[in-house]
Amino acid sequence: MMEQVENKQVIFRGYIEGAPKETDMEIKISGIQLKAPKGSDSGAFLVKNLYLSCDPYMRGRMRSSFTSSYIPPFVPGQPVEGFGVSKVVDSDNPNFKPGDLVAGLTGWEEYSLIRKTEQLRKIQPDHHIPLSYHIGLLGMPGFTAYAGFHEVCSPKSGEYVFVSAASGAVGQLVGQLAKLHGCYVVGSAGSSQKVDLLKNKLGFDEAFNYNDETDLVAALKRCFPQGIDIYFDNVGGEMLDAALLNMRDHGRIAVCGMVSLHSYHDPQGIHNLFTLVTKRITMKGFLQSDYLHLYPRFLDYVISNYKQGKIVYVEDMNEGLENAPAAFVGLFSGKNVGKQVVRVACE
Amino acid sequence: MMEQVENKQVIFRGYIEGAPKETDMEIKISGIQLKAPKGSDSGAFLVKNLYLSCDPYMRGRMRSSFTSSYIPPFVPGQPVEGFGVSKVVDSDNPNFKPGDLVAGLTGWEEYSLIRKTEQLRKIQPDHHIPLSYHIGLLGMPGFTAYAGFHEVCSPKSGEYVFVSAASGAVGQLVGQLAKLHGCYVVGSAGSSQKVDLLKNKLGFDEAFNYNDETDLVAALKRCFPQGIDIYFDNVGGEMLDAALLNMRDHGRIAVCGMVSLHSYHDPQGIHNLFTLVTKRITMKGFLQSDYLHLYPRFLDYVISNYKQGKIVYVEDMNEGLENAPAAFVGLFSGKNVGKQVVRVACE
Repeated sequence: MMEQVENKQVIFRGYIEGAPKETDMEIKISGIQLKAPKGSDSGAFLVKNLYLSCDPYMRGRMRSSFTSSYIPPFVPGQPVEGFGVSKVVDSDNPNFKPGDLVAGLTGWEEYSLIRKTEQLRKIQPDHHIPLSYHIGLLGMPGFTAYAGFHEVCSPKSGEYVFVSAASGAVGQLVGQLAKLHGCYVVGSAGSSQKVDLLKNKLGFDEAFNYNDETDLVAALKRCFPQGIDIYFDNVGGEMLDAALLNMRDHGRIAVCGMVSLHSYHDPQGIHNLFTLVTKRITMKGFLQSDYLHLYPRFLDYVISNYKQGKIVYVEDMNEGLENAPAAFVGLFSGKNVGKQVVRVACE
Repeated sequence: MMEQVENKQVIFRGYIEGAPKETDMEIKISGIQLKAPKGSDSGAFLVKNLYLSCDPYMRGRMRSSFTSSYIPPFVPGQPVEGFGVSKVVDSDNPNFKPGDLVAGLTGWEEYSLIRKTEQLRKIQPDHHIPLSYHIGLLGMPGFTAYAGFHEVCSPKSGEYVFVSAASGAVGQLVGQLAKLHGCYVVGSAGSSQKVDLLKNKLGFDEAFNYNDETDLVAALKRCFPQGIDIYFDNVGGEMLDAALLNMRDHGRIAVCGMVSLHSYHDPQGIHNLFTLVTKRITMKGFLQSDYLHLYPRFLDYVISNYKQGKIVYVEDMNEGLENAPAAFVGLFSGKNVGKQVVRVACE
């Protein structure tokens, strides 16, 4: 008879169209055997989840009509899936041994059986780098910032760069990469605390609280009297419309996400796209997963700059799996300050 | 005493925000001396205008708030300015002699004094090519199609191409260029006559009348069950929104114009931009004037294919300068069938 333990899980209840609510998920206690199935074709391994990542893109997977080729929707009744840092407990896979640390797609639960390893990488412990950074600065959000800024924005030293949701998981690194590249960088965020962070910790040249502005077009004109060369767009909506009116000729807009979208079913309109023509603007949506060949270069660059103190990273750490739904939902009203992480278990 | 003749003119009355009306222009009879001012610093020449071009972009120049760097707004009280084919009558410029034919920016009037020659080129008469083609197939609209398709859309043989306003000055050539490039091409237009033209004269693989469709998303899905790789967008608005939902991964949208825009002051919203991210779409506004170094190559390619019968061009020719305002206004309700030209005088 195999050892069975309790396994707390965050279950996805069913498909939604609007912004996620805590009640779209529920906590369930299941049982799990802490053994990976053995056999010639298994290759599976069992992990204990340490840190889980709350990311805005996960909202897309909560839609039944989500038909993109890059990732399937969640399965109702099954645990939420997301990026995490985990420790191998038992394994039938020669590449992953008990005690190994891994970062990649896992379940929102205490223990997960991993069968697909394409999106997992082994982590070498490094006392100078917090483990949770492997789902933030050094994980998908950090790589999104790196690929988006360097590969999509075609930045040149001296250019004027605007970043929205600038203190978030992606934005905070975009701003720092732009500064390292010799750009002038302004960020927007939703509280004075975040603005302070941008200006005094993350090295942005300027920042503003969009909740304090009655006219976003005027706010951007004040910050960029000469116009914007690059807009790294994490929010869409009104801010995108305001940016369109403030772009310079041949400007570039990297569309990373649209966290301001209230509903996919009745999405907000963007009105100023006619400026794409007169200003010859390129607007490009992207996914980090198209640039994975650059991951090693990204890790070298960011780790090196981090260790030299030239890059910092702000996390918002919530404790306990049962608080994961609230942490995730909070992303859409900007409750998080920095990258939202949930600690499930101590290392 | 110098010879003075009557000079009928189309005067721009004043700035507008909505779609142009005939009353935004007025006909005026002035007098003009058929002599170019002579002198060491003149370089001016006087032309008789033969054909004038009605182009949707001219609407932008009717706005006082038109602040783009690429071309200034019209001056109220002065003749409308636009592309034309003209014959030199008198000249103080050694490069342009009486009897020479020129194509480029001129005034909406019978005779114009030309002082700026940067946007003018001399035409070699060719009995196989109608003179008016120099403001259509071989002029700005044709070059817009060429630069937009080949330089902005990054087309590959076998790709699925959608063109809106497909029987218009630009769209009809885009479709033919795409066919010559080995693509599958569908066009939309606003009447059954135009659909017939697209399918039976211009060589489109398929075409539909958007006025017959209750659901543009479904119409595009019917024409492109496998999705759209390239959308050459001449109209913006609802068609752009419908195309966004039908794009394939890594699709490209060349934004050439937004003729469906009812008002610059309160422009219609585009709602489906979130697909830019999931499908990694690139949307790029462009102006042909950024690609003028390719003009000689364009002329060689199009003239050669035209003479081989592999490219055709449909014009909508209105007679008489006094009918120019109605012809121009008609562009915005799709009255024109093919490229809208006004014949001012016989050759």
